[in-house]
Formats: sequence, C-alpha cells, structure tokens
Amino acid sequence: MKKANIKLNAAIIIIGNEILSGRTQDINVVTISNWLNELGVKLEEVRVIPDKESTIVKTINEVRKKFKYIFTTGGIGPTHDDITSKSISKAFNVKYCYHPKAYKLLENYYEKGKFNIGRKKMAKMPKNASLILNPSSTAPGFFIKNVYCLPGVPSILKSMLGGLKNKIIGGKKIFSKTLSLRTVESEISIPLEKVQNKFNKLEIGSYPFFKQGKIGVSLVIRSDKLKLIEKCKKDIITFVKKKKIKILLEK
Amino acid sequence: MKKANIKLNAAIIIIGNEILSGRTQDINVVTISNWLNELGVKLEEVRVIPDKESTIVKTINEVRKKFKYIFTTGGIGPTHDDITSKSISKAFNVKYCYHPKAYKLLENYYEKGKFNIGRKKMAKMPKNASLILNPSSTAPGFFIKNVYCLPGVPSILKSMLGGLKNKIIGGKKIFSKTLSLRTVESEISIPLEKVQNKFNKLEIGSYPFFKQGKIGVSLVIRSDKLKLIEKCKKDIITFVKKKKIKILLEK
Repeated sequence: MKKANIKLNAAIIIIGNEILSGRTQDINVVTISNWLNELGVKLEEVRVIPDKESTIVKTINEVRKKFKYIFTTGGIGPTHDDITSKSISKAFNVKYCYHPKAYKLLENYYEKGKFNIGRKKMAKMPKNASLILNPSSTAPGFFIKNVYCLPGVPSILKSMLGGLKNKIIGGKKIFSKTLSLRTVESEISIPLEKVQNKFNKLEIGSYPFFKQGKIGVSLVIRSDKLKLIEKCKKDIITFVKKKKIKILLEK
Repeated sequence: MKKANIKLNAAIIIIGNEILSGRTQDINVVTISNWLNELGVKLEEVRVIPDKESTIVKTINEVRKKFKYIFTTGGIGPTHDDITSKSISKAFNVKYCYHPKAYKLLENYYEKGKFNIGRKKMAKMPKNASLILNPSSTAPGFFIKNVYCLPGVPSILKSMLGGLKNKIIGGKKIFSKTLSLRTVESEISIPLEKVQNKFNKLEIGSYPFFKQGKIGVSLVIRSDKLKLIEKCKKDIITFVKKKKIKILLEK
C-alpha cells in the first residue's frame, strides 16, 4: 500500500455545471467536511468539475489513488445530464448495469405503472457497487472501492451520511477552537507566528472578518490533540492581553 | 500555442484550510463565475487546496497550462498562514520580493510608524508581477502571466474585480434562461433528453428543488447564443404544456 493511502484523508469531487456556472451555491462541502471532522478524516482537496464523462473519468482515476476516501456529489438523478454512475463505471472499467437491490427498492417506491425509464436509470450503477441508502427519496447512492457517490441535493445528501458512517474507518476526532479578537491581522502577525512556531504540530489559521461595520480577526486552532490546543490558546491569550486587544469570542 | 490555451476558459484555485475544514462557507466562486459569464469566459474547474507550499506550487503549475485564466483566492494577507505570494513566486521560479508600487501604496496608507513587518509582507510578491488594485483596504492583489491572485475576504475580492476587467480578453457573453416547473425530474427526463439531443450546442441542466415543502425542477439552458436558447425553451414549453405541468417561473 502506498503511504498516501494510509493517511485518513479525503477529497470531494463536485460534479456539476450548475456550480461552475455560478447559478448554484454549493453547501455540501461544509456538510461533508464537518461530518469528516467528527470521524477523524481530514478533507484535503475539493474539485468542482463539469458534467463531462472524460473529465469525470480522468479526475476520479487521478484522485482515488491520492486519497483514502473520495466523495462525489451530484449527477446520480434521472435526467440526461446525470452521468456520474456511468462515468464511474467507466473509470473502474466495470459494467454499468441495474443493481438488483436498487431496482427493487425503486420499483417498490413508485406506484404500479409509474416506474418509468427515467426512474429505472437511478438503479443503474457500476456492477457490484454497494448501496448507500437514501431515507429521504429512496434513490440510493453507491460506493465502489474508495469512491462514494452521493446526490447533489443538500437535504438528501445530509440524510444519507448517517448510514455511511459505519462504512468509513475513522481516526481521532479533529477539534477546533476559535478566538475572535477586535484587532487587525497585521497587529498580531509577529507574535502569532511565534506561537505557531512553538506549536508546530497545530494548525493555526487567521481570518479577518467584517461584521456590522466592525472589523476583527478570528484565530482558529485545529488538531486532534485537544490539550495542546488549550495550551496554545493560553499562549495566544497572553500576548493578546499584553497588547490590550479585546477578546470578542472564545469557543 | 496549445489548443487548450485558445479557449476562453478559467479555473479558480481556492487556497484555504478554512474552507477545507468546513469552518468557512466559500462564496467567492459564485461571485467570480458570474463576473466571468459577463466577460464570456467559461469557468471549467475549481479546486480547494490547503495552505501548503508544495501543494500550491504543484497545483498552479498544473492548471496554468490547462486553462486560459487562473484565479486564486486567499493567502495574501499579513499572517504566517498567508503563503500564496511566496508559493506563486516559487511556481514561476522568480524572486519573491517587495513590489515598489505596492510598498509605496501601503506605506502611504498606514500612519507613520505603523507600517510594521506584517504590513510590509503584503507588498511582497513575485518579481515583476502586475498589481490588481484594492479600493477597499489598499493591500493589492497581483498577476503574473495568466495567474491572477485575489484575497479571500469576499467583500474585498468583489471590490477588486472592477479594476481587473480590462485585463481579461473576453468572449461572447454567456446567457442563461431558467424554467421552473411543478414536477419531478423522472416525469420529464425522456422528452427533455430529446430536446437536448436536438439542441446539442446548448447546455441544458435539470435541477430538482424543495421550497416551502413543495418540490419542483428548474431547467437551465446556457449558451452564448440567445436566439437558440429561446427556440430550445419554446420546445421545452411545448412538451411541458402537453404533460399539463405547471410553469412556476420563466426568466
């Protein structure tokens, strides 16, 4: 096994012209990322790509070797622009065909005579894929090896994550603590860098914000080591108090 | 010149641990994408990558050969985690140093004695980069060859796009028309595919939605050919009326 595959990391591939065109605001990354934090899996890359078979095949075959888990969103519905399942089959060089259990689930869901070709399409996926059940609207997602295919509709995607949890081998939960300050970044950059150098196993991020006409900076410390985060936060508070900077929020 | 470089396409590289961690919801993609639609440049890929020099260098050097324009967001502030300018210098193998005009702009902006090391850092960029002026908070962005580096704070980024417009060679404006229907995708997938096959130069997207407990589908037709979009829309309306589906919105 390659070293990269031992790391508990993940990538999300958003398959969707509607995100690239600026029509739709993606909100699935935040959902999946926060869910992965709980599971102790680190999201390390996101790509948004068009509904284009060759691009999907190429991208999937590139990223599935680089990351432990790949989550795709979008493109598993019944219309002509839903080409994820077919493209994933191609990427893995397996047959694209009806999944017997998915077919049965959908057949039972629709009234007699209403299980039309479009609906049947949602039962087609790579041969021998495993189902990800959908408690909202029945049409399942699926996974094949380390690639997990979810729908694009945020509420449906969210409802499917619960059933996926026991299929992911997780690590230590990733914690995050925030300090919001009434200051500007350039006032604290030097002492903050010193703290970062001291706690070089932690990830400290600095994010300016503007709220109700007032400016501030949020410092976010992130790691699976909660005690170390607390120590680091204490060091930051020490220099912040010395500089007489107001702490707006600590959580 | 390679064929890919003649196409008026673009990619966005979001440099930001805060997006990957799920802490921050990106909204810059929608802003840049809609601005590019007006300019006739098609956004074809988005990547979110961590604040890690080797990843930034590798990603930039990969995508700048594939797309006409690359826009990066984030990482050009004064703190230790702002490493975009330095990484881009490395990607282009040029010196990372003070830009004389950027230095002067920032020196004038801050009160005497307040132009500290953190603030000076914001004047450092790849040698011979061109500035992208910042009407909100002075600290400029920059571009080098086809890579345009913008800040991550949405309001500042937005304010800088105006000054960038005349630096982009655009194409035909990309139009988009929407039809929202009271139906489900699987009811219309067959006739919709027929329309897509007839108008194969247009991009027709189908997006289910849930609003106030009611379901529907938005069909979005996209192209730089407005007349062809109207013709296609007419064909869709014909089958929609035949199926007695209610049109909720036409725009």
